[in-house]
Amino acid sequence: MSLVVVGSVAYDGVETPYGRVERMLGGACTYISLAASYFTKVNIVGVVGEDFAQEDIDLLAGRNIGLEGLERAPGKTFFWAGVYSEDMNDRTTLTTDLNVFADFDPKLPESYRNTPYLLLGNIQPGLQQNVRKQVNGTKAVAGDTMNLWINETRDELLETIKGWDVLLINDSEARLLTGQKNLKAAAKKILTMGPNTLIIKRGEYGAILFRGDYHFVAPAYLLHQVFDPTGAGDCFAAGFMGHLAAKELDLSDKSLDSRELARAVVYGSVMGSFCCEKFGVDRFRTLTRAEIDERYQEFRQFTSF
Amino acid sequence: MSLVVVGSVAYDGVETPYGRVERMLGGACTYISLAASYFTKVNIVGVVGEDFAQEDIDLLAGRNIGLEGLERAPGKTFFWAGVYSEDMNDRTTLTTDLNVFADFDPKLPESYRNTPYLLLGNIQPGLQQNVRKQVNGTKAVAGDTMNLWINETRDELLETIKGWDVLLINDSEARLLTGQKNLKAAAKKILTMGPNTLIIKRGEYGAILFRGDYHFVAPAYLLHQVFDPTGAGDCFAAGFMGHLAAKELDLSDKSLDSRELARAVVYGSVMGSFCCEKFGVDRFRTLTRAEIDERYQEFRQFTSF
Repeated sequence: MSLVVVGSVAYDGVETPYGRVERMLGGACTYISLAASYFTKVNIVGVVGEDFAQEDIDLLAGRNIGLEGLERAPGKTFFWAGVYSEDMNDRTTLTTDLNVFADFDPKLPESYRNTPYLLLGNIQPGLQQNVRKQVNGTKAVAGDTMNLWINETRDELLETIKGWDVLLINDSEARLLTGQKNLKAAAKKILTMGPNTLIIKRGEYGAILFRGDYHFVAPAYLLHQVFDPTGAGDCFAAGFMGHLAAKELDLSDKSLDSRELARAVVYGSVMGSFCCEKFGVDRFRTLTRAEIDERYQEFRQFTSF
Repeated sequence: MSLVVVGSVAYDGVETPYGRVERMLGGACTYISLAASYFTKVNIVGVVGEDFAQEDIDLLAGRNIGLEGLERAPGKTFFWAGVYSEDMNDRTTLTTDLNVFADFDPKLPESYRNTPYLLLGNIQPGLQQNVRKQVNGTKAVAGDTMNLWINETRDELLETIKGWDVLLINDSEARLLTGQKNLKAAAKKILTMGPNTLIIKRGEYGAILFRGDYHFVAPAYLLHQVFDPTGAGDCFAAGFMGHLAAKELDLSDKSLDSRELARAVVYGSVMGSFCCEKFGVDRFRTLTRAEIDERYQEFRQFTSF
């Protein structure tokens, strides 16, 4: 079943200990849609400028991603540049040129409005809320956010996530959002804020899913080399929602098999790991579904006891 | 089969965000022996001063821990005091009074010398090496170390671990020991240094076991509250070696079922989690084997997919 993805489409400049790329395709919507396209039909909503290259359109179209909601506006495409620390656990933003993204006011094409699955990339909560309202009955709405919105637009964010099934957040953000130091206590509190499912992302340590009294802990894949972690969290979200969409799972169903959610988390971890193997979205130029399934089986091997 | 444990027996002063205890039973040997006693017969080698309390002897003896190798020397017992950071991921040492531990030169009673399992707590590598030489053919020798010895007695440490089957170390120490930033690369290098099995401890994120081409990733248990993480790494080692001893597993056997090693890691994680639930060794005053097995089953629940 189809998945609508809303978020930034951008050009990024990235420097890691393994190299530097001045300008390449990026943005949450781009990463999510490419990664999710291995699981289900994806339609995107985003905005690009006049400089957006045909080869980048071709990459998305080549993965059968629906581009009806990709608006082209006068001006330049959103540009972000950053540099990663030696251990890649921190990054410093060097440039943020919002350009056409400054006036991004996502509107869903009529044909998207009955989408059963909606994934809201990390943008201003008010915009996420507007999008949510444009969608009719769904099986799962998931959204990402960040410390900036928790600190600066807290009330709006709290109002926004009330309409979500899944909140994706990292551990420090979960603590910031709830004021709870203990992760289990923070999770419990977030599950009273609207979402019926919470995913706490832990970077190189994996992720935890919480839902009711159930929780599932997934490790991250141990890579030989992390070239560029940009987009890994987005690809995680993509694998998770992609599996839900592929299996037509409905998160409002309280009797939903929790093992399917666990599998979705593992697919998230798998997609996050592939993302880091090359710069930007490069890994998705060659990645095959067979490789995804093979790595999923590897997860079984190194977590079974 | 019996396990000999060598290391510090101490009194600790500990302050965490949840409270403060001025003086309580501690030391790696104490934590390890208590935790391992739920799995197998344990005999300890350590030294205490004239101030070592009868009730602490009684606690160890009450868990059927062999005390023939616990020397009582003139002077005071080793005393350590430290304070944990708000998130408990860091601790600052306030006091280290080595006292009788300064001259600790562990000698194994004759009756210990055929022990099939030996666990060397974190002490000076030269002492660990002396102990190793006192033991005849074994099924598994494991040892812990720390950044201090990696930095200050590197050559001696490298010589020492050549005689071990298992090195237990945390992730930053693995990087420090090998000069490899990537954990998988660091592990590969360590497995050429002597040990056939490596366990990388990751604190609140769990642990990874490496052996040959096999690896197993275990999460840590999500506790409602971490009262005091002192000794958690020691209790992890205890659960791991305790399971090996209980199952009579021989690490020199190259065809050893890797699932059994994975189970040993999970028992390690289980024991580390119990350790954090109360101050010092207090949890072991009431812990039952049934509780351990119940938590082990919980690990299955939250890691299966």
